[in-house]
Amino acid sequence: MGTEGYATENNELDKWGFKPNRDLTAASEITVRGVLTTLLGKVDKDDKRSIVPLGHGDPSAFPCFRTTLAAEDAVVDSFRSAKFNCYAPTVGIVPARRAVAEYLNRDLPYKLSEDDVFLTLGCLQAIEVALTVLARPGANILFPRPGFPYYESRAAVCGLEVRHFDLVPERGWEVDLEAVESLADKNTVAMVVVNPGNPCGCVYSYEHLKIVAETAKKLGILVIADEVYAHLTFGSKQFVPMGVFGSIVPVLTLGSISKRWIVPGWRLGWLVTTDPNGILLKTGMVDTIKGYLDISSDPPTVIQGGVQQLIENTKEDFFLKIRSLLKKAADTGYDRLQDIPCVTCPMKPEGSMFVMVKLNLSKLDDIEDDVDFCVKLAREESVIVLPGIAVGLKNWLRVTFAIEPSALEDGLDRMKAFCKRHGKKQ
Amino acid sequence: MGTEGYATENNELDKWGFKPNRDLTAASEITVRGVLTTLLGKVDKDDKRSIVPLGHGDPSAFPCFRTTLAAEDAVVDSFRSAKFNCYAPTVGIVPARRAVAEYLNRDLPYKLSEDDVFLTLGCLQAIEVALTVLARPGANILFPRPGFPYYESRAAVCGLEVRHFDLVPERGWEVDLEAVESLADKNTVAMVVVNPGNPCGCVYSYEHLKIVAETAKKLGILVIADEVYAHLTFGSKQFVPMGVFGSIVPVLTLGSISKRWIVPGWRLGWLVTTDPNGILLKTGMVDTIKGYLDISSDPPTVIQGGVQQLIENTKEDFFLKIRSLLKKAADTGYDRLQDIPCVTCPMKPEGSMFVMVKLNLSKLDDIEDDVDFCVKLAREESVIVLPGIAVGLKNWLRVTFAIEPSALEDGLDRMKAFCKRHGKKQ
Repeated sequence: MGTEGYATENNELDKWGFKPNRDLTAASEITVRGVLTTLLGKVDKDDKRSIVPLGHGDPSAFPCFRTTLAAEDAVVDSFRSAKFNCYAPTVGIVPARRAVAEYLNRDLPYKLSEDDVFLTLGCLQAIEVALTVLARPGANILFPRPGFPYYESRAAVCGLEVRHFDLVPERGWEVDLEAVESLADKNTVAMVVVNPGNPCGCVYSYEHLKIVAETAKKLGILVIADEVYAHLTFGSKQFVPMGVFGSIVPVLTLGSISKRWIVPGWRLGWLVTTDPNGILLKTGMVDTIKGYLDISSDPPTVIQGGVQQLIENTKEDFFLKIRSLLKKAADTGYDRLQDIPCVTCPMKPEGSMFVMVKLNLSKLDDIEDDVDFCVKLAREESVIVLPGIAVGLKNWLRVTFAIEPSALEDGLDRMKAFCKRHGKKQ
Repeated sequence: MGTEGYATENNELDKWGFKPNRDLTAASEITVRGVLTTLLGKVDKDDKRSIVPLGHGDPSAFPCFRTTLAAEDAVVDSFRSAKFNCYAPTVGIVPARRAVAEYLNRDLPYKLSEDDVFLTLGCLQAIEVALTVLARPGANILFPRPGFPYYESRAAVCGLEVRHFDLVPERGWEVDLEAVESLADKNTVAMVVVNPGNPCGCVYSYEHLKIVAETAKKLGILVIADEVYAHLTFGSKQFVPMGVFGSIVPVLTLGSISKRWIVPGWRLGWLVTTDPNGILLKTGMVDTIKGYLDISSDPPTVIQGGVQQLIENTKEDFFLKIRSLLKKAADTGYDRLQDIPCVTCPMKPEGSMFVMVKLNLSKLDDIEDDVDFCVKLAREESVIVLPGIAVGLKNWLRVTFAIEPSALEDGLDRMKAFCKRHGKKQ
């Protein structure tokens, strides 16, 4: 940031005793948003073509992905009622918590109540809460690689040691359970499972999730199930929530309305104790979650006030339309990627909004690594793609296909032209 | 919480390796919301009278305090435009940042730009950000007593040592600047000034704020100016923002739309660098603020999308109406409190929504302390008042007058009856 040492060079600044908390600089060094902002800065302002954003999971700007009117009406009604201008209880208002419980109960073999649901600012705050309440001194936690760097940032802030297990591309990005077993020790508190997968686009089978649950039980650790892309599946496998195995192992389920309803800017999510044996309650975890929420920011009461109506009034048609749009985009994206030299795509995506693509650097002439690839791609083609290093896999790319179909085709055509131009001459 | 030691008593729980982060339990031990929830639980369910909430600063539930239609329209328009369903930049969207800068510029002798404004989840998250970015190892910070316990909680979470200076009731709750000077050392990073005052109802003069700024400059510390109650004044003194003295000392100004527009449930606030000399920029504080916001939750984009219109379209009439309502309530409250035996009110409130009241325990028969007073008052009279210990002053009470006038009169009449009943017999 170029300000280190500035104070000692400048007498005017010497007299001030405050200094920035440098631990935070390390924790926020790699964030998806930070990397994407940097790449956007590389785009040539003279390029007349529009920027193609293949970097982030937010298609809300495209008209075909606009949320359902039922969702808009629900929140507008909440505003107009003037009943939700007040502060909310720190765990969320009861009708909204109950509505989320009932929504999740559709897919569970037991019943959650509103007491199991804690409303958060999107899934991101649910991640923050889950990690912070587990961060006793000396504890470590197991994260998937590739993964989502927000987990690493929050672990750094709360002092949790991070250990990584691999997701295996040859096995549809399944969890390497042998690695999980060899990484865990008596100070391991939890493992994170993201399903449907960001950044891999995978969807885990019932059988695989059950073995994950049994492994976690054997190790005595809980499962943090990041299901922010729940129900956004369009391959052979249905979405199975990890909570189905809550009687094997206690599960913290994280989710939100951001992805399924395409409204990430509404910031409404949840952390749910899917734990029919009440282990999280008996071990004091639930009290600690409540305590941390008491000193955390809340999702706006006015948005909480619309949640029940939003869930009840959304028609199945809307969900089907979004899944069908995503399937078409995933198919198109996969086909076009097959046709681009110098990249390999190990698996056709079956869920979420992303696919991981491997760079074959040996076939590229003047590209150093994934970051160099993404910087030059942004500069020369105004196409934004996330370098794999940001999700833990160097020399891969994370590509989102969840954008308007013609923009996707345009973006991948530009990437193809870029790869041809930078390909090694035979 | 009663779960300590449970794990060792119960074999079933022994096999799980996770335990709650107990540091959080300490940090969240005293919160205004926690104490008020406990008191609400003491109310006799058979009492036919309605509960009188004199505990918190949120009059939004009373029809006379309903926000202006211009504010509702602004945010509903934002929803209906569907332009703000997307993620926002972590510092906030430019039009909203610019609107807040221009709003604050009305009262400043220099011009802020949008780059000085960081949007937060109400003023609470602004407090979290301010303390976290200053929390380098070994640092300490100066808080007022009485104060707002959220500061203590967040300081505990980020490991900042807290030192308290007194506010002096005999001098209109002004800052005891001698105490500030004697508490500060080379590891002191900042002092917090809350104006208009929560919990004291005081409003600081231009002269007093200027001496505060000069003292901070002499000590080489910055000023965190909590102005969440900005412009809610109704006594002899006008509101003067601390930023007026930004060229003497760098100021972090914290504010929100929650109080002036009576919409705490919308969760829109700001942290602003009111620092025309650019010291916060040069010392790297601004970069650290941005870095922490990169890994923090954001205020909903849809609410940010309405801020510019909300500020521009709100008529002065609305502000005048709210101030006049508060003035009437403060007058009524002060008069009735004079008439209650066993309590003393050192100063008529001139701003914010609160007044501090001293308990004369020697005149009460079976009341142990402020907590005992509030518990019995809740149980016997269904009146909720915050015990002073929650804001750092044992055996005082914090009373809000910002409720519907007839409810305020009813509540204080009940408190009077309570005091008479528990008063020492002559």
